[in-house]
Amino acid sequence: MSRGFERAEYETRIARAQVLMDRAGLGALLLTTEADVRYFTGFRTRFWESPSRSWFLVVPREGPPKAVIPSIGAALMGRTWIEDIRTWPAPNPEDDGVSLLAQTLAEVGGPVGVPSGYETHLRMPLADFARVRDLAGLPFTGDAGIVARLRAVKSPAEVAKIETACAIAGRAFARVPEFAGEGRALAGVFRDFQRLLLEEGADWVPYLAGGAAQGGYADVISPASEMPLRAGDVLMLDTGAVWDGYFCDFDRNFAVGHVGDGVAEAHARLIEATATAMEIARPGARACDLWRAMSDIVGAGETAGRLGHGLGMQLTEGLSLTPRDETVLEPGMVITLEPGIDRPGGLCMVHEENIVITEGAPRALSPLAEAEIPVM
Amino acid sequence: MSRGFERAEYETRIARAQVLMDRAGLGALLLTTEADVRYFTGFRTRFWESPSRSWFLVVPREGPPKAVIPSIGAALMGRTWIEDIRTWPAPNPEDDGVSLLAQTLAEVGGPVGVPSGYETHLRMPLADFARVRDLAGLPFTGDAGIVARLRAVKSPAEVAKIETACAIAGRAFARVPEFAGEGRALAGVFRDFQRLLLEEGADWVPYLAGGAAQGGYADVISPASEMPLRAGDVLMLDTGAVWDGYFCDFDRNFAVGHVGDGVAEAHARLIEATATAMEIARPGARACDLWRAMSDIVGAGETAGRLGHGLGMQLTEGLSLTPRDETVLEPGMVITLEPGIDRPGGLCMVHEENIVITEGAPRALSPLAEAEIPVM
Repeated sequence: MSRGFERAEYETRIARAQVLMDRAGLGALLLTTEADVRYFTGFRTRFWESPSRSWFLVVPREGPPKAVIPSIGAALMGRTWIEDIRTWPAPNPEDDGVSLLAQTLAEVGGPVGVPSGYETHLRMPLADFARVRDLAGLPFTGDAGIVARLRAVKSPAEVAKIETACAIAGRAFARVPEFAGEGRALAGVFRDFQRLLLEEGADWVPYLAGGAAQGGYADVISPASEMPLRAGDVLMLDTGAVWDGYFCDFDRNFAVGHVGDGVAEAHARLIEATATAMEIARPGARACDLWRAMSDIVGAGETAGRLGHGLGMQLTEGLSLTPRDETVLEPGMVITLEPGIDRPGGLCMVHEENIVITEGAPRALSPLAEAEIPVM
Repeated sequence: MSRGFERAEYETRIARAQVLMDRAGLGALLLTTEADVRYFTGFRTRFWESPSRSWFLVVPREGPPKAVIPSIGAALMGRTWIEDIRTWPAPNPEDDGVSLLAQTLAEVGGPVGVPSGYETHLRMPLADFARVRDLAGLPFTGDAGIVARLRAVKSPAEVAKIETACAIAGRAFARVPEFAGEGRALAGVFRDFQRLLLEEGADWVPYLAGGAAQGGYADVISPASEMPLRAGDVLMLDTGAVWDGYFCDFDRNFAVGHVGDGVAEAHARLIEATATAMEIARPGARACDLWRAMSDIVGAGETAGRLGHGLGMQLTEGLSLTPRDETVLEPGMVITLEPGIDRPGGLCMVHEENIVITEGAPRALSPLAEAEIPVM
């Protein structure tokens, strides 16, 4: 699997954005987040972990994008397909790229569309944003959902990267019984599982969640405790491992020592739910249809969380499998199927797979779990 | 080393914030980022990796803070010291906590201070923020730098966590020669080093950077390449490993096979620079004084990047060692000393240590490197 993308991939992304910008009457897009900047440039670095520097990409209605970035990133951005790279010596709290960005936007012309809707944020200080708006002298508005809409439909090259990440996690999950079992603390299991993901080829492991308790687990977002696993626990590990900038996001359940009461049935029900959703996950079906198909099996109430979501350059992105989301599936969308089922004592069990929508039946990107819960 | 903090630690943080809020005439603080919310609550989860949900904390001028969060986080927030927890079933694109947050703010009263300055961002959709402002019917303004100012000075319990992360990374750096050497690809070295950090006790490894080339490296933010290490290369690894929510951030240089021309001298110069900065890093000295002391030794020009920065709940936070930053050091500040030196061919070498400012001489949190560059 080769890293990066052909230049044509980026040119296509920009061309599609510009068609939609024209339709929405936008003169420019202003992008500030890691995923949005990388989507159009290929600029890939873990340096975004530092909040000290802002990074900007301006996509004009015509012509190639312009990067307005701290000088520390000039060399790396220079190795992407981007040619118009403007830098300032950051951090400079008096003018942290503000005047350079405003000048670039003024050259390009407005209205300036800034992603402002669901799942977006502006990754720059609000005070700087206000100054840029004043200096640029252009109207600012939302991006009409353009960036999210483009990113929701993956190219074959993007799907291949997600599939690679899924395969890595699949190999790591297969090895969990090597190190997890009765008496091991969950925190140690979390640590070892991350090591395994790296060993199997992940570039890094931005996300790991899970839980373990008798017959289920209390929630799926808590950090791991030092409590040792006990026989009868259900252990769940859920990872977002990254390969070449793309995530997988799926989990696996394991029965520790023996299968507790009702656990086998609950697990089989979860697998049935994902299988049923896969049967209808074709172009034209809506996110809410998949939610309904799964919730009919696992019994999720209307107020339950979502039962899956889009996936790609971020752990979660795009549609949500909820009763409210009427997004129509299109070929190239990559989504997770993530049914959850209530368990006695306020516990739950959750199962998750990753699939890509095609013209026909969806293709599984994660190695589909068996109906029978593995015992270790 | 025990995890978490005593309840008194959070009460002190809130009390200090409220003194400053009173002085700044603020009725509430509205916090939206992982670090800011965690600072006042102890709410720790890797679930922030998902952009799909917003999380809010409202700190009133009097009384305890109020969490306004997705219901999926209620159980975990319920295990912190926070008692006033208001939830909504997210994601709900029609009203993703907007009315609940606006109502909470209206109860508390304004003006509402939102972190808006250097290194901050608003982690919620801009369109939702505009609706909250309209609905709350209160004046919104910046936070007068209050949160950054509080977070800049660490408690002894916070320093202990950073020191634990530093010790973990120190043990991992000591083992680098076990797996890195001539012929190994840098990408493999990155992967193994992350595994080592986990093995030595890191909870996770949000940041890893580095470089390797003949006698130096081209930049310090690029992802690792598949190019094998060669004799004469200088290998640098720089990590932000996390323990219980606190970062270390330091690097180490290694000579591969043999020490290239000028490398020993450059390395010794870098060590001399950090040692010199440590001599003057006492209360009353300014960030720019430390910059000057190091730049006199390594020859950094006025336009060079910073030579160090604050450190704590984020990889970089607070002051910058630049000629422009006149922040006065105070006991409890944790900073990095990070001098860089130019090398022939457009290359550089960078060295980094972590220290805490005390009433007297600073205390090293990272195990200080020797002047002699290790050969492997």
